[in-house]
Amino acid sequence: MGNWTHLIRFIAKEDQQVHLGQLVDTTRDVGTDSVDGIEIKAYLIRGSIFDGRIITGVVYTVERLLSPVSPSECSYIRCLGLNYKDHAQEGGFALPSAPVLFTKPRTALADPYPAAVTIPKVAQDGTSDYEAELCAVIGRTGRDIPEEEALDYVLGYTASNDVSARKLQLLTAQWCFAKGLDGSCPLEAMRKPANQHIYRALGPVLVAPSAIPDPQTLAIKTIYNGAVVQDGHTSDMIFSLRQQIAYLSQGTTLEAGSIILTGTPAGIGFFRKPAVVLEDGGDVRVEIEGIGTLVNRVRYDAD
Amino acid sequence: MGNWTHLIRFIAKEDQQVHLGQLVDTTRDVGTDSVDGIEIKAYLIRGSIFDGRIITGVVYTVERLLSPVSPSECSYIRCLGLNYKDHAQEGGFALPSAPVLFTKPRTALADPYPAAVTIPKVAQDGTSDYEAELCAVIGRTGRDIPEEEALDYVLGYTASNDVSARKLQLLTAQWCFAKGLDGSCPLEAMRKPANQHIYRALGPVLVAPSAIPDPQTLAIKTIYNGAVVQDGHTSDMIFSLRQQIAYLSQGTTLEAGSIILTGTPAGIGFFRKPAVVLEDGGDVRVEIEGIGTLVNRVRYDAD
Repeated sequence: MGNWTHLIRFIAKEDQQVHLGQLVDTTRDVGTDSVDGIEIKAYLIRGSIFDGRIITGVVYTVERLLSPVSPSECSYIRCLGLNYKDHAQEGGFALPSAPVLFTKPRTALADPYPAAVTIPKVAQDGTSDYEAELCAVIGRTGRDIPEEEALDYVLGYTASNDVSARKLQLLTAQWCFAKGLDGSCPLEAMRKPANQHIYRALGPVLVAPSAIPDPQTLAIKTIYNGAVVQDGHTSDMIFSLRQQIAYLSQGTTLEAGSIILTGTPAGIGFFRKPAVVLEDGGDVRVEIEGIGTLVNRVRYDAD
Repeated sequence: MGNWTHLIRFIAKEDQQVHLGQLVDTTRDVGTDSVDGIEIKAYLIRGSIFDGRIITGVVYTVERLLSPVSPSECSYIRCLGLNYKDHAQEGGFALPSAPVLFTKPRTALADPYPAAVTIPKVAQDGTSDYEAELCAVIGRTGRDIPEEEALDYVLGYTASNDVSARKLQLLTAQWCFAKGLDGSCPLEAMRKPANQHIYRALGPVLVAPSAIPDPQTLAIKTIYNGAVVQDGHTSDMIFSLRQQIAYLSQGTTLEAGSIILTGTPAGIGFFRKPAVVLEDGGDVRVEIEGIGTLVNRVRYDAD
């Protein structure tokens, strides 16, 4: 038994139950493996994402990957707006003087492939959009966290897609409705191999922060129907994750299990010429350097 | 045993435990009674706020009133911005064309008197403000709720104070940080007497919607250190509660236990001349006609 470094949540072929597991082979991109039908094996983890320990003697086979964080563990999803310099510039916005916070409800959480990004009727207006985001899961509850201790509060890192309904977003000055539709926050855990110098897509795994010394060193992309449409880097963030946690925890308790989406780089569909829109049946992938690929199909709700 | 109509959550004198109860005397304002040291009696309610039943044979005495909704029951607090005509006008804002949604985390929940509205260090800048709000607690989970069925999803009504840090709010275009500080959402249940024609302050009780046929008929006030500083009416809302629930549930699951703060009328401290600020030791009360008085003292955090 030991601490996990690369955690997945999945339904097992063996018993059709939901389990937590540590990847047996930590060198593969299980996000794309799952799409390609390549078998994924994991050591059983007993306990929760917060206190789980690896049982190395028990190996399961993945039937289906799930979001590493379930709604029962997550009370609140904080999201940063306009947090990449290149994205603020493409929109013609001044750089913000403080982190720009909006939120999503936990009902926005969705699983990776084969789960879909669902677009409800209200957003089927030709303006549904992607946003690739590096995501941090808070591991212990804290308040007034100093910047130098901020990363100690991170349980792990994941890749996520801040799916946004642009027309609704522009209707009012506040973004929480347009950004909080059901399924608007698919998550896939990210991981980096033990060898810090090798960066390749490997997810979906929740990586202990000991394995990711600096979250500001990662390339981040969105690939839509095979075309790279966002191609940024976390070093371009205006407020680093340390700064975000320190700022957002001022006078405010950050609960264990809550999530921070750290903003998106340039290249969102709405600002592209011609515009790119999430269409029914589209294939949208968030790939983070050295981490993994979050794959979803887009599905327009019929009702 | 029967359905409750006027529910409180409280610590009982008899056993120092937390209970739910139905007021024995539903004609008093237990919010102000609590401040004045007047004894409050309640029939025990067994079960949760969602399925509780009154046990009329068991009467407890209130040692201390608590928020009728606890953080374990509440996943998300939705708040409407600029939803009263007179408030939009005092700020010089155009009337919004759609509900303006921001949110608070459940860690913002606070109890009525003797609990304080706590102002953390980061907001002790002379701009901490009150906002009286009619509050609806969602009783069953729903999505795509038609306007005509919207009030069937309401478990009960409460009075609340959308405590706001104005200087932080003006730093960025999104309000969730400045509005989401710990303790920034004190709640007190509201109720109306069985006789619909008599309106007087009576809270804090969670009232079954059967007892409040129309939430758009209520006077709403803030009283700060004895002076009336907000004096509005829920008929002045731009989007009625029915419209809010219908709009916000489009493509979005509203979970049972989630809360909607329906906006504030004119008279916020920031727009008053001279400005009114929540000062350490201040006495802030939200009074809703026929409902009750939410009383809190203001306390500036020392750390």
